[in-house]
Amino acid sequence: MNFKIASNLTELRAKSPLVQNITNFVVMNYTANALLAIGASPVMAHAAEEVEDMVSIAGALVVNIGTLSPQWVEGMKKAMLAARKLNKPIVLDPVGAGATPYRNSVLSELLTSAPPTLIRGNGSEILALAGANVQTKGVDSTTNSTDSLQAAKLLSEQFGCVVSVSGATDVIVSGDKVAYVQNGVSLMTRVTGMGCSASAIAGAFCAIQPDVFQAAVSAAVTMGVCGEKAFEKAQSPGSFQIAFLDALAEITAEELELLAVVK
Amino acid sequence: MNFKIASNLTELRAKSPLVQNITNFVVMNYTANALLAIGASPVMAHAAEEVEDMVSIAGALVVNIGTLSPQWVEGMKKAMLAARKLNKPIVLDPVGAGATPYRNSVLSELLTSAPPTLIRGNGSEILALAGANVQTKGVDSTTNSTDSLQAAKLLSEQFGCVVSVSGATDVIVSGDKVAYVQNGVSLMTRVTGMGCSASAIAGAFCAIQPDVFQAAVSAAVTMGVCGEKAFEKAQSPGSFQIAFLDALAEITAEELELLAVVK
Amino acid sequence: MNFKIASNLTELRAKSPLVQNITNFVVMNYTANALLAIGASPVMAHAAEEVEDMVSIAGALVVNIGTLSPQWVEGMKKAMLAARKLNKPIVLDPVGAGATPYRNSVLSELLTSAPPTLIRGNGSEILALAGANVQTKGVDSTTNSTDSLQAAKLLSEQFGCVVSVSGATDVIVSGDKVAYVQNGVSLMTRVTGMGCSASAIAGAFCAIQPDVFQAAVSAAVTMGVCGEKAFEKAQSPGSFQIAFLDALAEITAEELELLAVVK
Repeated sequence: MNFKIASNLTELRAKSPLVQNITNFVVMNYTANALLAIGASPVMAHAAEEVEDMVSIAGALVVNIGTLSPQWVEGMKKAMLAARKLNKPIVLDPVGAGATPYRNSVLSELLTSAPPTLIRGNGSEILALAGANVQTKGVDSTTNSTDSLQAAKLLSEQFGCVVSVSGATDVIVSGDKVAYVQNGVSLMTRVTGMGCSASAIAGAFCAIQPDVFQAAVSAAVTMGVCGEKAFEKAQSPGSFQIAFLDALAEITAEELELLAVVK
Repeated sequence: MNFKIASNLTELRAKSPLVQNITNFVVMNYTANALLAIGASPVMAHAAEEVEDMVSIAGALVVNIGTLSPQWVEGMKKAMLAARKLNKPIVLDPVGAGATPYRNSVLSELLTSAPPTLIRGNGSEILALAGANVQTKGVDSTTNSTDSLQAAKLLSEQFGCVVSVSGATDVIVSGDKVAYVQNGVSLMTRVTGMGCSASAIAGAFCAIQPDVFQAAVSAAVTMGVCGEKAFEKAQSPGSFQIAFLDALAEITAEELELLAVVK
Repeated sequence: MNFKIASNLTELRAKSPLVQNITNFVVMNYTANALLAIGASPVMAHAAEEVEDMVSIAGALVVNIGTLSPQWVEGMKKAMLAARKLNKPIVLDPVGAGATPYRNSVLSELLTSAPPTLIRGNGSEILALAGANVQTKGVDSTTNSTDSLQAAKLLSEQFGCVVSVSGATDVIVSGDKVAYVQNGVSLMTRVTGMGCSASAIAGAFCAIQPDVFQAAVSAAVTMGVCGEKAFEKAQSPGSFQIAFLDALAEITAEELELLAVVK
């Protein structure tokens, strides 16, 4: 399979798409910086009073339920419905799926009212979302991404969307198609917001590449390769998170394609 | 013109004014750190239940509408009215003005109920605020700051305030007076919260310098010069944002005055 | 006294306890990264709809009122009551106590409805909480931690909890017992979220060490020693905050015990 990784990154940087994020308080700064570093233009707006207007000028919508509450869920729903109507890509990050009944019910509501274009989560979250009897440990994964292949396939069929599962090996599923991305370093799990940034960057790729499977693979490769490059410079989590942002800005399209390990 | 840049910074550090911020979720951490680094004392409080009390002990109020919602707008209004009553400087940062009708109507409401002492925004935002028919691309500027000179003059007259427009050249307008600050590096547009930090730091200068024009120029110079110093150490956005905080703490008053490029 | 500092850190890293945080917008990212760096697993959830469920799977609850509002206070109360019922440790960080009447009344409400296991604050906050007639300057301390020894003793008796006061010398009080921790560097007061991280890390220690006095001392030593180690690498606030996260991850249990200065 050819995922057009190099040309997707080149196009992302040329177009600098506006990515509308309704995300959690913990990672807002880091994901905004990640989007700027890779070459996209982030905007964060959550109020029901304006999300539809913001979606209408954006190239993609990213919804992340990390620190949800009823008022924010209202904004998420409105934004997702508007994006569906306008045929704009939606990335849903089901942070902490399975951790509490409230999260599960909100996710169920969001998924049925406005199915996303791409679901991106860790193994535990994808298993929980697919209805497996799994107890998430807060927001960190307790399973391998490869264990969740069946769950990802189920979700992909059920909602007609692409599903990207992050882990030591990232698994990206689109109906019958499966891609495995083996880039990345384990230190990424010691920095908060890496998964959320993966979702945001997937949104940026979806904004310029209508083939969502390609966009999702390109995003996973970008995260993993930049993680590897950052790790060359920094082996502790504080300096690593900074080196990662630098890597997002420094990586060239050719380098990204060259270092990609996709099967 | 003499802007007293060196003595303003010296006084800011000697007095370490408390700056009350009602700002957006994306930049709260970074702007608090920027205020601490330059030598001010930040506080972030937004609840209608306490903003008036917090304003009463603060030296300046900074209002930034980046991630607004009705409840926060209520706090912003109360805080601005309290600051007006107590004759304390107000800096308004109209983040994303022009991006959605909601933002525009909130800004109109805030501006008329309690006109600020200083409006600081990028070119697109200032044009939108002045009623120009401009579509902001989310929160990033799509125009030059110099293009917005007329808009800045209009706003300055209409609300009797100083207007500071950030860009490759910063334009600061106070009635008939105009100053141009040519410090800064383009990498600053690749880090989120740089504009918001400019507003927060302007608040700190306003807290110790009653001449708002002088305070606004001093703040713009501080941002620009520290950007230049940070760029000497770091040319990628992750490490640049850290080097920028270091520069805010390391810059001396004499160095700031010496490196200032103001016309 | 033996505070089991080395073995506490070893156990924290082995168990990687889930720490549920209801904290302020300014520091969420930094405290989550601090918890990950030291080896714990952070989760941030605040909605009344899910806090009880999140507490039930967590090892400790940390409540920090930095940017409070009525809706968040509702979540704090529910979470604290649930933690009491389930006999899980609660750390309360009374950010800005004394700064506004609203803060004071919320703190009084929280303290009486569900007394915490540990109160951690700076000198001004502890004095304000104990009813002293002190005006906090926003969220920064204006008194020495040692001045607040009597206030800490009063609070410890009144609420049957441990009280940890941060400052040049940290003072930890549990009934009649008092420990003084003399680690740390003054640059820590120039980075936002250091106190909040101290509370979060205290939560992580409380999750694995039922002797709260021991846990509080271990947390204070961890903060101070890592501050010293960070300062060896970075003397300006931007790079210092990053070096501090690195130090949390790099410090060994033996090194921590060796460098501890506790009386």
